[in-house]
This record gives sequence, structure tokens and C-alpha cells, in this order.
Amino acid sequence: MVAESLVQADLRGVDSHGVVRADIYLRRLEAGMVQTGGIMPYTEDGAIRILDGANHFGAVVGCKALAMAMETSRKYGCGVVGVKGSNHFGTCAYYLLKAVRQNQIMLILSNASQTMPPTGGIRPFIGTNPFSVGVPAGTHPPFILDMATSVVARGKIISAAQKGEPIPAGWAIDKYGNPTTDAHAALEGSVLPLGGAKGYAISMFIDIMSGVLTGAGFGRYVNNMYENWEDPQNVGHFFIALDIPRFMPLERFKARMDLYLDEMKAEPTAPGVPEILIPGELEHRCTLARMREGIALPAKVEDELRVWGERFDLNLSDAIIE
Amino acid sequence: MVAESLVQADLRGVDSHGVVRADIYLRRLEAGMVQTGGIMPYTEDGAIRILDGANHFGAVVGCKALAMAMETSRKYGCGVVGVKGSNHFGTCAYYLLKAVRQNQIMLILSNASQTMPPTGGIRPFIGTNPFSVGVPAGTHPPFILDMATSVVARGKIISAAQKGEPIPAGWAIDKYGNPTTDAHAALEGSVLPLGGAKGYAISMFIDIMSGVLTGAGFGRYVNNMYENWEDPQNVGHFFIALDIPRFMPLERFKARMDLYLDEMKAEPTAPGVPEILIPGELEHRCTLARMREGIALPAKVEDELRVWGERFDLNLSDAIIE
Repeated sequence: MVAESLVQADLRGVDSHGVVRADIYLRRLEAGMVQTGGIMPYTEDGAIRILDGANHFGAVVGCKALAMAMETSRKYGCGVVGVKGSNHFGTCAYYLLKAVRQNQIMLILSNASQTMPPTGGIRPFIGTNPFSVGVPAGTHPPFILDMATSVVARGKIISAAQKGEPIPAGWAIDKYGNPTTDAHAALEGSVLPLGGAKGYAISMFIDIMSGVLTGAGFGRYVNNMYENWEDPQNVGHFFIALDIPRFMPLERFKARMDLYLDEMKAEPTAPGVPEILIPGELEHRCTLARMREGIALPAKVEDELRVWGERFDLNLSDAIIE
Repeated sequence: MVAESLVQADLRGVDSHGVVRADIYLRRLEAGMVQTGGIMPYTEDGAIRILDGANHFGAVVGCKALAMAMETSRKYGCGVVGVKGSNHFGTCAYYLLKAVRQNQIMLILSNASQTMPPTGGIRPFIGTNPFSVGVPAGTHPPFILDMATSVVARGKIISAAQKGEPIPAGWAIDKYGNPTTDAHAALEGSVLPLGGAKGYAISMFIDIMSGVLTGAGFGRYVNNMYENWEDPQNVGHFFIALDIPRFMPLERFKARMDLYLDEMKAEPTAPGVPEILIPGELEHRCTLARMREGIALPAKVEDELRVWGERFDLNLSDAIIE
């Protein structure tokens, strides 16, 4: 599940959340910071479930939460799963795509360790907590919205730092609160929330639902997987699944989605804009292309994978495009 | 309910959604574009309800949906109400405040008539569809997030136009797609989405949930209350209520909220920033102040109210601060 989650992120072109994360995941596993095996206890009450991830890998916890949300949704029309005791779980889109293939509408939130200041603040207090929604369509690819509540995903700054590239102005402040275009200085400072106070407020909402309400960490109590080697991350997630046939027949819903997307894409565009894009559409095309052509990894990631592979007698050369 | 909704918006300092709207509401009522009396039919299936507002005033439909969402939430832990056949329903905060007083967490979405272009587009296709969440706290005022998915609420541009004031750059484009600071030109053109493609995507999500999934209008099928005097608006809303004790004891949740808000407010601030604010905090203070001091209305709104009042032998002079 972890490998599938990372490779699928790369397939979609979300390189910041792809196998670039394999190294830190494996280092935390080796350091005993993440558990494998053993049960994940949960409680159920009506349409609400609380899942304790028991410090398993985030993707493993996320897949369990997803399955519980969909099962509960089929029973009650909606299924709500609050998750505590989890870890970084990759992209939300990994789970959304599984849900839309089952014709469910899925809303997924997650908190994350501190990287953004509150509006008016100067140091990180909230995470770039992702907001995500997946909705199936008919002939169109599904609507897949998966966004950080920062101006950009912090993973894009990690990618820039790894490539030695600068970042655009407005993405981040350094640890003294000054604007910066240095990716390394940005990683030591704060990523800025999307749209000022509005992004700050959405990120807080996600922290409340994923952390305060579930029993997971929130604010300063979500530990950083790169910096804290003493404590579990205690990340929280929040899943809401909706069973479309409780609202209207599935085929009618899909026809309405197609009409909506057809009309959106038919809108006139500004000069130089070839087409209106639907959330998830570019990533859908990227997936088709990379399924044919493979995934090009940065040399640094390739080296990391090779070293891990050699330790376990895994020869990665066949999978790597030179 | 309509009057309470408008006055409460003014109390909170959200003048754009206050009694400034009384005139258009009353004109639509007089023109037969809005119904009063008669039932609002609904279906129920598990934790899902579909409410047909039957073209009643938005506040009347919204209060009914709110009550159904809370009743369903108490039964199943969550209550989901999709609403079709509604009208402009004022601020979401009006309903959120009722919900948090009942110790429920409430998420409310609504679509609106076309005022924003998709990213890359040049003319309005989606509304400034509001996203809103209310969460009760312990000693702190409740967390009340109620935001348009535009850079700013279109109502603020309406207010500026009524006051004859310009708007800041970056809020809107004119009907030819050019940036503008003229409030009137902006109202004829498009408001821009919050944070570029991210705001566009969130607005689409809200349209899908409120319109496509409920059977209400969506995209071009949500009619403008100022311009269309032939058809009902067919606005759609989406309510999700969550019953906190299904997650953890209410007092424990409120203590966690207070800890979160205490720690957020204790964060160091940038030079010139007196304090970190929680969503809804300023509006809470404004409500307390305006409850004491009254609400100052623009002369235009005062005149409108006076004219309507005279027609129905209502003397407004006692309520107006000169």
C-alpha cells in the first residue's frame, strides 16, 4: 500500500509526494518510529467511526479508514471516519481515486506538522493541511481536488531544495519572518497560507476535524517526521464518504456531472490559455503518459532507492529509465 | 427568520449581507419570484435528507435544513441535508451560530449565481460559493469560518458600489477580462477566485455538492436574483452536521478546542499586529458592540427601509441611529 501510494503520486506528476518520500519512510521504519503488523482498534457509533492507526504507516491507516468510510456510507448514506495515531499518508488523491472507482463521493482532510504561521504570526503553528474531494463523473475523468492549504504544497519546496532551485516570491518566509526565494531558507521558516486569512482559517478547520475531534495531535502536537525521532507523529485524518444513490440515481448524477464539466470546458479562454482544466484532469493525462513512458526520478532519489535496494538484494535497474 | 438573518449579519459587521439585502428580497417577493407558506417536501434515506425549498425565502429553507441536519445528526452521528429549490439565504454564519449553540459541528455550503470565471476563463461561470464551518469551543467564542471562495465576497463589491468607493486591485476583472478597481465595472465583470486555481476548484466542489448532487441549479442554472425576474433562483445548499459526543465527551472536546485556541492566540506576532485572531472572533466582538450601540446603516439603505416601512405603516425612525 505504501509503495502503491508513492508510485501513484509520481504517475500523477505529484513528484513531491512520490518515491522521493521512500527514504524518510524507510528511515523511520528502521528507527522504530513506525509500526508494522498488529491491529488498528476502532469504535463505531451510528455513522461515526474513530480509527486508531496505532502508529502504522499512513498509507496503511488511510486504506483502512477509506474502506471503513465506504462501508459505513453504504449502510447509512454517509460514513464519517476520524483517524488518530497515524503518520504521513501520502497524497489524498490515492484514496480519492479508489473511492470514485467505487462510485462514492469522498472528502478527505489531514493535518500535518507545523509549517505555516497563523495570519499575523511569524513562525509555524499549523500544517499545510490538505483539503481534498473526489467525485465520479460519467465520460469525463473524475473530479479530483487535492490541495495543500498553503500557497503551494510544502513538498514542492522540498523538491526545489533537492534540485537546488529557487522558489517564487510569495510562497514562504524565512525563520526570521522575512520573504525568501531560497528553498532551504523556506524549509527552515514558514510556508504561507493560501489567500491570507482564508487559507489560515481552512487549515485550522482541517486541524480541528482531523486532530482536535479525533484525539490525534493538533497544532504543535503533530510531530515532524524529518525532525522528531523520539515520538510517533500522531497525525490525524478525517474521511467523509457519501453514497450517491441516496441523493439521486447514479446515472442521473453522472449525466449532470458530465453536463457541468462539458459546459465548464466550453467556456471561452483568455489569450494564450489553450483550454479550461478540471481539477485532476492534468494529473489524469500525466498518469496515462507515465504509464506508457515510465517515471523519471531525480538522481538523488534514484541513488537513495539503489542503496536501500542493495541492502535487501533488490535490483532496481530494470525499473529506472536512464 | 429572514429579518433575523439580515440583522444578525449587520450585528456581526458583515454589512454586505445585512439589511442592505432587504430591498431586493422584498422586491422579489412582491414580483412573485419567491413563495411564502406551503410545505417544503423532503425525502429521507439513512442519514441523508433531500429538502426541496419549494422556492421559499432562503433563510426559511436554510432554517428548515439546519433543523433537519441537527435532528439527523443526533440520530446517526452525522446528518447530511442536500437542498434544492432555494434562494439566496444570507450568511452561512446565521445557521452556524444556531448549530454551535446546540453543541453541533456544522459544515454549510451553498452555490450562487455566476460571478467568477474558471481559471483561464474570461467570464463568470461559477458563483462565489461560500464555504463555512462552525465549531463550539469552551471558554472561547465559537470557531466560525464563513468565507466566499472569491478573493473577497461579492457583497463587499456591492457595498463599495453603493458607497461610490473604488475596490482594491486584484479583486475583479471587468466584462472584457481586464483588471479593474471600479466597483460598478467589477459587478458587470467577474470576481476572481481565491488563490487562483485553488479557489476555482473549491468553488466547483461546492457547486457539485450543492447543485449537481441535490437536484438544484448549478453553473449557469443558478439564476441571478438581481437580473432574472422570470425564473426562481433554484439555489442549492449542502449541510453536514456532526454530533460531537459520538467522537469524544463534549467537555473533553471543548477543553481541547480551548487549548488549541489558547495556544494559537499565544503565538508571537509580526510587528504592528496586536494579536492573532481566530475565525469569527472579530465578528463576535462586533456583535457585542453593536448590541450595545446599534447598527449604523448607509443612507441609501435607510431610505429603502423607510419607503418599504411607509407602505406597511411601519415607523422605522425609532430603530435608526441618526
